Amino acid sequence: MVERHRLDSMFHPGSVAVVGASASPGAWGGASFLGRLQKLQFAGSLYPVNPKATEVNGLRAYPDIKSIPEPPELVIIAIPGPAVPQVLEDCITAGVKNVHIFSSGFAETGLEEGRQLDRQITEIIRRGDLRVVGPNCMGLYVPASRLAYWGEEPEGSGSVAFLSQSGGHGEMLSGYAQKLGVYFSKMISFGNACGLQAIDFLEYLAQDPETKIITMYLEGIRDGGRFTRLVKRVNRFKPVIVWKGGLTEGGSRAVASHTGSLAGEEKVWDAFFAQTGAVRAGSLEEIVDITLAFMHLKPPCGRRVLLIGGGGGNSVAMADICSREGLEVPRLTEETRRELNTFIRLAGNSARNPVDAWMLQENADLFRRTVEMAVADPMIDMVILDRYVWNEDGRNPERLRQMETVSDFIIEFARENRYDKPVVMALNASANDPDSAATAARLWTKSAKAGLPTYLSQLSASRALSRFVGYHEFLAKSGDGEE
Amino acid sequence: MVERHRLDSMFHPGSVAVVGASASPGAWGGASFLGRLQKLQFAGSLYPVNPKATEVNGLRAYPDIKSIPEPPELVIIAIPGPAVPQVLEDCITAGVKNVHIFSSGFAETGLEEGRQLDRQITEIIRRGDLRVVGPNCMGLYVPASRLAYWGEEPEGSGSVAFLSQSGGHGEMLSGYAQKLGVYFSKMISFGNACGLQAIDFLEYLAQDPETKIITMYLEGIRDGGRFTRLVKRVNRFKPVIVWKGGLTEGGSRAVASHTGSLAGEEKVWDAFFAQTGAVRAGSLEEIVDITLAFMHLKPPCGRRVLLIGGGGGNSVAMADICSREGLEVPRLTEETRRELNTFIRLAGNSARNPVDAWMLQENADLFRRTVEMAVADPMIDMVILDRYVWNEDGRNPERLRQMETVSDFIIEFARENRYDKPVVMALNASANDPDSAATAARLWTKSAKAGLPTYLSQLSASRALSRFVGYHEFLAKSGDGEE
Repeated sequence: MVERHRLDSMFHPGSVAVVGASASPGAWGGASFLGRLQKLQFAGSLYPVNPKATEVNGLRAYPDIKSIPEPPELVIIAIPGPAVPQVLEDCITAGVKNVHIFSSGFAETGLEEGRQLDRQITEIIRRGDLRVVGPNCMGLYVPASRLAYWGEEPEGSGSVAFLSQSGGHGEMLSGYAQKLGVYFSKMISFGNACGLQAIDFLEYLAQDPETKIITMYLEGIRDGGRFTRLVKRVNRFKPVIVWKGGLTEGGSRAVASHTGSLAGEEKVWDAFFAQTGAVRAGSLEEIVDITLAFMHLKPPCGRRVLLIGGGGGNSVAMADICSREGLEVPRLTEETRRELNTFIRLAGNSARNPVDAWMLQENADLFRRTVEMAVADPMIDMVILDRYVWNEDGRNPERLRQMETVSDFIIEFARENRYDKPVVMALNASANDPDSAATAARLWTKSAKAGLPTYLSQLSASRALSRFVGYHEFLAKSGDGEE
Repeated sequence: MVERHRLDSMFHPGSVAVVGASASPGAWGGASFLGRLQKLQFAGSLYPVNPKATEVNGLRAYPDIKSIPEPPELVIIAIPGPAVPQVLEDCITAGVKNVHIFSSGFAETGLEEGRQLDRQITEIIRRGDLRVVGPNCMGLYVPASRLAYWGEEPEGSGSVAFLSQSGGHGEMLSGYAQKLGVYFSKMISFGNACGLQAIDFLEYLAQDPETKIITMYLEGIRDGGRFTRLVKRVNRFKPVIVWKGGLTEGGSRAVASHTGSLAGEEKVWDAFFAQTGAVRAGSLEEIVDITLAFMHLKPPCGRRVLLIGGGGGNSVAMADICSREGLEVPRLTEETRRELNTFIRLAGNSARNPVDAWMLQENADLFRRTVEMAVADPMIDMVILDRYVWNEDGRNPERLRQMETVSDFIIEFARENRYDKPVVMALNASANDPDSAATAARLWTKSAKAGLPTYLSQLSASRALSRFVGYHEFLAKSGDGEE
């Protein structure tokens, strides 16, 4: 039998107590956690703790942790900060091990009383050998355990973990990602990290069989050297995608008032990325963009990209964007160009790379012939198919049908992958036109859920591919046994 | 009486001939120009030229230019490239001065026959002293003259000019910009520029009383020194916003196959921007973003920005983005923070800069109090109000109402501008949620049209403000008489 990781009972608890559970229907944040667990049909025992109630949401309420008949496998603390130390003491007395402190009012306030409270709970946590997430955080989100008491209601469980020093980012990501078919094994919002650190969670995720890709939002970490070594090791077998917040002067001041962390200098983090090979992201959207590539694509052989899009000016823009993101836009071979020219010229398009196939986008057959022919070119390692939902497109039923047909072809083409080259789609939409924006959202979510990495702009597509290739280049360069 | 500029008759012609006008209803491009002019009720005389027809769209057709009873003030040539030289000869014979060559098949093909044709028409143009736009371009778009035979149908005429070496960009921009209340005085798509150059059009726009802001998409220019000096001079009294395409290796190859231009090296263009003070843009969307600032904002006193948004993680992201774009995110004064803390703390928000006003976004009164108080702070030069249309927001009627209310307040607040500090709004939307994407588009267009510069992301807002401030810093630094 495989030994259970010491944190496993935290992520898959048989019983949960919520200290500060409120029955009021407008309850927000911690007070609403119990209701969410009930709604998602959490399978274990649930214990509301509230000294002012005998019952909450139809469940018997307890005045404190010690009164609960069994030590809960997870205690969620959602009461004002100054009351937290006593609850932790009760946890120790009751034999509780796993605690999530939702409460805020600690070092992140920047006030002496907050820092004092921080020191106080840190001492209790150490003395009681408690495993604590927080304080000042949303805690755990584990769809497979139905332990999703915050964030968007999960549509499913997946293989992506998100480790975050911002609960807000977790909230936003939970809904955003699953619309594109990115489902989570675990999300962990760990806030001020008075107990468990990023490094503890990363160790857990590294061995977690449900997790294949690890994404992170970090503000500051302690024990940077050990963390760097761990990321370097884990990144070899599970890609680690990191968004580091607070790298600028303004951002680092914001970090201090958010989680009380020291954000660290940009050059230190540049070294972190260079040493570990972790994949750099710059926003939630970028985390998802890059994750889609890791979920669905096989590693390409190089950085040479074929761009199929439309319009002369757009071709220049596409090539500029790719070049800036570190991809190459090579000439196609003379042979491919000759073949393409047999039919593409007639339509007034251009058989170079970028292939200007503006008018072909409305003719699925010609578009298919172009794509098939160009992708086969030996100069090409991967493909971005650029498409446009512009101005009045979102209100033109015929155009919408054509776009659907072309999308379906691309999804199928990418799935067959006869040329063994990654294929992605970029949608460029008039975001200020409600119909076009909504149409782009529909095409995007449909194809991403069908397994085709799809992006809302050519920039996002290029950046995601560049980071994806960079990861594989790092692995190839750094060899296997090397540390 | 003010002397008429030599190009004025081109932009406000009393009569137009379309060579290659087709009556077929599916006609695309040049063949459809005549129909568009009729649809928009062009006020002057229209002469279809088509040797195979006696009538086109109810108008008498002529076999060639020479047969038309008067020399048309503008001739649009939309027939295959090899037939263009003869039409130009006819124009000379008939005494025509202004010509737009829509036809392609010249130097942009990269083929010897195309280059030969280019040289041939260049010679005819010089000999006949013709004023020629093109070839290989969409030509002129002048809403006030109802001379808008391409692009989105104009909703109105405005004070922004767009000078472009890509007709596709003009097409896209025409619809995109006017949704945000950015209307055009003139759009000029000038393609290969065998006759009139960017510099000729710029001279015209500089003296054009309808034009207050000049935007451009350039691929390559001739006579760089003269162009640079002209931009430097014009930029002093009409902001010149330039998107230069083809600055990368891949992009410059794409430029060669688009307009046959030499794209030039990046450092040459860096010097151009440094010397002229022209405002740098990187996409059509950025051109519009920056233009909105110039249209609606008074120059700020400095780069110190107040960020009001929501969430700890978002605050860090907002501050990072601003810092990277070259704006400062200063601490508020002790006094403002104390005042803010009297009520903001209660709501669990943070009274620093960025001001974390997550929950206040749903409470218009508290939001107003926060904004009024923070904007007055002497540390602040300008304001970005960050708002979120995320995940399920687009389907929540109550939330939609709150967002409308807050938007209306911000529009009004920015209009009053009691503190004499630029105020802009950034909408951050889940672009992959059809309802949220459409809602953001509606809020965006409404407030931009109401005169509040509004952006679809915090990045766009920061970049636009930074470029706007940069322009005014350049003017202040370079003084008046200096060249």
